Amino acid sequence: MIETPYLLFLGDAPDQLSAKVAQGIKDWRPDNAVGQLRMEGCKADVGLTDMTLAQAREAGAKTLVIGVANRGGYISQAWKKVLIEALGMGYDLASGLHNLLANEGDLVAASQINGQTLHDVRVPNVEYPIANGVKRTGKRVLAVGTDCSVGKMYTALALDEAMRKKGMTSTFRATGQTGILITGSGVPLDAVVADFMAGAVEYLTPDNDADHWDIIEGQGSLFHVSYSGVTLALIHGGQPDALILCHEPTRPHMRGLPDYTPPSLAAVRDTALTLARVANPACEVVGVSVNTQHLSEAEADAYLAKVEAEMGLPAVDPFRHGADKLADALAAL
Amino acid sequence: MIETPYLLFLGDAPDQLSAKVAQGIKDWRPDNAVGQLRMEGCKADVGLTDMTLAQAREAGAKTLVIGVANRGGYISQAWKKVLIEALGMGYDLASGLHNLLANEGDLVAASQINGQTLHDVRVPNVEYPIANGVKRTGKRVLAVGTDCSVGKMYTALALDEAMRKKGMTSTFRATGQTGILITGSGVPLDAVVADFMAGAVEYLTPDNDADHWDIIEGQGSLFHVSYSGVTLALIHGGQPDALILCHEPTRPHMRGLPDYTPPSLAAVRDTALTLARVANPACEVVGVSVNTQHLSEAEADAYLAKVEAEMGLPAVDPFRHGADKLADALAAL
Repeated sequence: MIETPYLLFLGDAPDQLSAKVAQGIKDWRPDNAVGQLRMEGCKADVGLTDMTLAQAREAGAKTLVIGVANRGGYISQAWKKVLIEALGMGYDLASGLHNLLANEGDLVAASQINGQTLHDVRVPNVEYPIANGVKRTGKRVLAVGTDCSVGKMYTALALDEAMRKKGMTSTFRATGQTGILITGSGVPLDAVVADFMAGAVEYLTPDNDADHWDIIEGQGSLFHVSYSGVTLALIHGGQPDALILCHEPTRPHMRGLPDYTPPSLAAVRDTALTLARVANPACEVVGVSVNTQHLSEAEADAYLAKVEAEMGLPAVDPFRHGADKLADALAAL
Repeated sequence: MIETPYLLFLGDAPDQLSAKVAQGIKDWRPDNAVGQLRMEGCKADVGLTDMTLAQAREAGAKTLVIGVANRGGYISQAWKKVLIEALGMGYDLASGLHNLLANEGDLVAASQINGQTLHDVRVPNVEYPIANGVKRTGKRVLAVGTDCSVGKMYTALALDEAMRKKGMTSTFRATGQTGILITGSGVPLDAVVADFMAGAVEYLTPDNDADHWDIIEGQGSLFHVSYSGVTLALIHGGQPDALILCHEPTRPHMRGLPDYTPPSLAAVRDTALTLARVANPACEVVGVSVNTQHLSEAEADAYLAKVEAEMGLPAVDPFRHGADKLADALAAL
């Protein structure tokens, strides 16, 4: 668990896109951040108040979150001065970069002086159990994709927001580093050892109130040969009551796999549902989330109408239209 | 790669079953072992010549393989004297135990004197790539099970033997510690980090001659919620041309999961084939391997005949009848 609120470190971000972790925190958990810290030459701005380390500390910030990715994901020397100063002032640090804070000797030394914590959310810090498959109380919904990077995290966060607004009780359960930094906790599933993947998901989504929904962030795709095992561990460890299919309709091929054609929504529905019902025989597919960013408004509307007709399920782009229809489908389950 | 031939260390094995790794080496790769080493009180005997460390060294042994599992899988103090003496005489050590040789300070120290290698086959010693899904040359067959521990490794090794006898070219590709110790190499797939599982399988089964068969050892089951992600990584990383379904027909429930009923062979066939064809559209299910150890001869024959009729596929128990029928099915593909 990463202590909130954060100060978001944007460093010397080369462009806005490189600050997508900070943007995600600002968009989805604005209460988790008191401000942003930008170094000279920073080309990103997530729209929070610019603060110094001292000002943010005064405002209550507990953790300096590295909300920016360098090319290559490393921790630059230019950042070190700020990070070490932050540790000296009592901040914890949190990072989702490939290069770990824990492998930087000067940061480790600085953190030990006052007992500050270095959170590397890309690696697990828990010994997860092997999954036992025992049925848990409460409800769970999982986003499953036709491909990687089609908007599963966005869908889950938008659904969480829509459900809260409707007075439903829900918790977004992060399974990747961006989601973990946004919410302050979760399981970095792609870094978990094979035998413990499904157990890590069980750990992430424990027993809960009967009307509570865990919204589990999806990863990969059953049809993406590089990562499909991670997806199946989510389906079996998650025991979902409901699946939401996520799709990006303009992909010429699977992400990173030029020879692989994306599967149809019907194929994902059938295979995901067959496998999900092993762990939860009552599981249903309740809706489709379509990432229409490469379609015009008219094209998007037409595509969504076509999906609704063909699949007999509500279909939305949560970015364009919010996730109310998906929340309603869960409420009706 | 573990250097052969081995001397098989049976230690103070409490019973025959505890020496199943050594027995596997003796049964499947007898040329890999020059003899066995038994301590006082050893209750196991795999039928090899008893040798001292010096005698086996004289006979060419390069590696002392711990072919026995203590209760708890630890490296006992009683063994240490022998293991340290072996290192001093120039042996490498190999172990599949939970407790690692590399974590025993006295063994590490003894190994460093003459540069001997400690092989802990339970943990990966390679940085596997992320799977790229590129079609590889040569042919591959994968054993997929209705459950864990139904005889997938046995089936694969028996198939390898049957294919060699027929003059086909094949390689057994180990994916678990027993298989790795038997053959001297492989991937301990259950210990690989999630993101790299399918890539590890690609690494294990590289391009090969057009008529060469890799026989990939299966793990888990698509229908076993604890380990299904590992199974799917095998299916997608392995790109199998052929699947063999493995089954144990008397299980009241899935192994370790009292609330889970084993799936039908037809269910495994349909789901495994759908997923396998993502990576290899030409994949076919070619046969069924049934573990009939809990059936009488007559019951076994009747069950196999029923499976053949229902599935339209050859069905054998390789332990009772050899794997010739399965090898013939591959040859006919």
